[in-house]
Amino acid sequence: MKLYGANGGCSQASHIALIESGLPYTFVSVARDKKTSDGRDFNSINPKGYTPALELEDGTILTESLAILMYIAEHSGKLLAKEGQARWRTLESTEFMTTELHANFRPLFFADSGEDERNKAKEMLARRFATLESQLGENQYLIGKNLTIADAYLFVMLSWARMMDIAVPQRFGTYAANLRNVPSVAAALSAEGLA
Amino acid sequence: MKLYGANGGCSQASHIALIESGLPYTFVSVARDKKTSDGRDFNSINPKGYTPALELEDGTILTESLAILMYIAEHSGKLLAKEGQARWRTLESTEFMTTELHANFRPLFFADSGEDERNKAKEMLARRFATLESQLGENQYLIGKNLTIADAYLFVMLSWARMMDIAVPQRFGTYAANLRNVPSVAAALSAEGLA
Repeated sequence: MKLYGANGGCSQASHIALIESGLPYTFVSVARDKKTSDGRDFNSINPKGYTPALELEDGTILTESLAILMYIAEHSGKLLAKEGQARWRTLESTEFMTTELHANFRPLFFADSGEDERNKAKEMLARRFATLESQLGENQYLIGKNLTIADAYLFVMLSWARMMDIAVPQRFGTYAANLRNVPSVAAALSAEGLA
Repeated sequence: MKLYGANGGCSQASHIALIESGLPYTFVSVARDKKTSDGRDFNSINPKGYTPALELEDGTILTESLAILMYIAEHSGKLLAKEGQARWRTLESTEFMTTELHANFRPLFFADSGEDERNKAKEMLARRFATLESQLGENQYLIGKNLTIADAYLFVMLSWARMMDIAVPQRFGTYAANLRNVPSVAAALSAEGLA
């Protein structure tokens, strides 16, 4: 499989998951001007224009983070419980991040967002991170005893919070520092020039 | 199972799916002031404060639309293919709607959104609906020959577009009219006082 991702983008969650899964893959970096590191125009690969995009074994392209993360999990048997509470809590919290966290970061990334819009987004982000903190408690991973797709996504959201100067609960400092030492996370950061 | 939903809200997709699944359920309506139709404070059920929320057989509460839709699909064997392209296209397009459509409706629902913010949201919605139109083509359902969780969600997004005067491709008029005649859709609308 071939993963198209932007260095440090939300695609990093899929990148981490792909490395952790042990499935064979190549990583292709997509620049801001939509040129890929293997010399193509990314808009011709994903007309929606954003990463991640995963080229499957049959050559088709799968997009949208949670769909890609689930694909990786189902094809490797890792990163997502097959049933029970662990499965549903993992899907619930990952979706919460793709809709409630990611969406509120957008006004902070776009130059044309007004001050009011930015402030509302920051307030909302603080509330959403607090919800995840109460879920994390003193645990090493968000759900259960192993790394799941939820941790891969939360790691990226916490990196964005740091970059955008969003205050997050202190507990997340330890959590993210631990994740940085997980080999798959370290390898993804290194491949994206962020080690 | 017990589904907590707001009449006409994004929870309507879960409501349609639950009826279509044939699983036993009750529907509890949540008003704007967070009072439920069975006399409780919804914030005590879902501290995040928004619908849908699904009370599972073990009494725990599952939140987030896509997680709930998947739960219903996995427990009924309906509405989502178990593998192959149909599965991944369904998950991809449903996630696209929860992140790219739903998020862009928000500024239109909130009274304190600026004019610029509203206009940007409307432009983005037009682009996102166009992507789904090209996926739909002349088919009756978004993916394959049967109703999936993607149709349940798209039906609600199209109702919102109509309510907010967002122009959508003409093809969606026929698509939504057909869905209104599907018994599970008609039953959900009726139960939510929207028939």
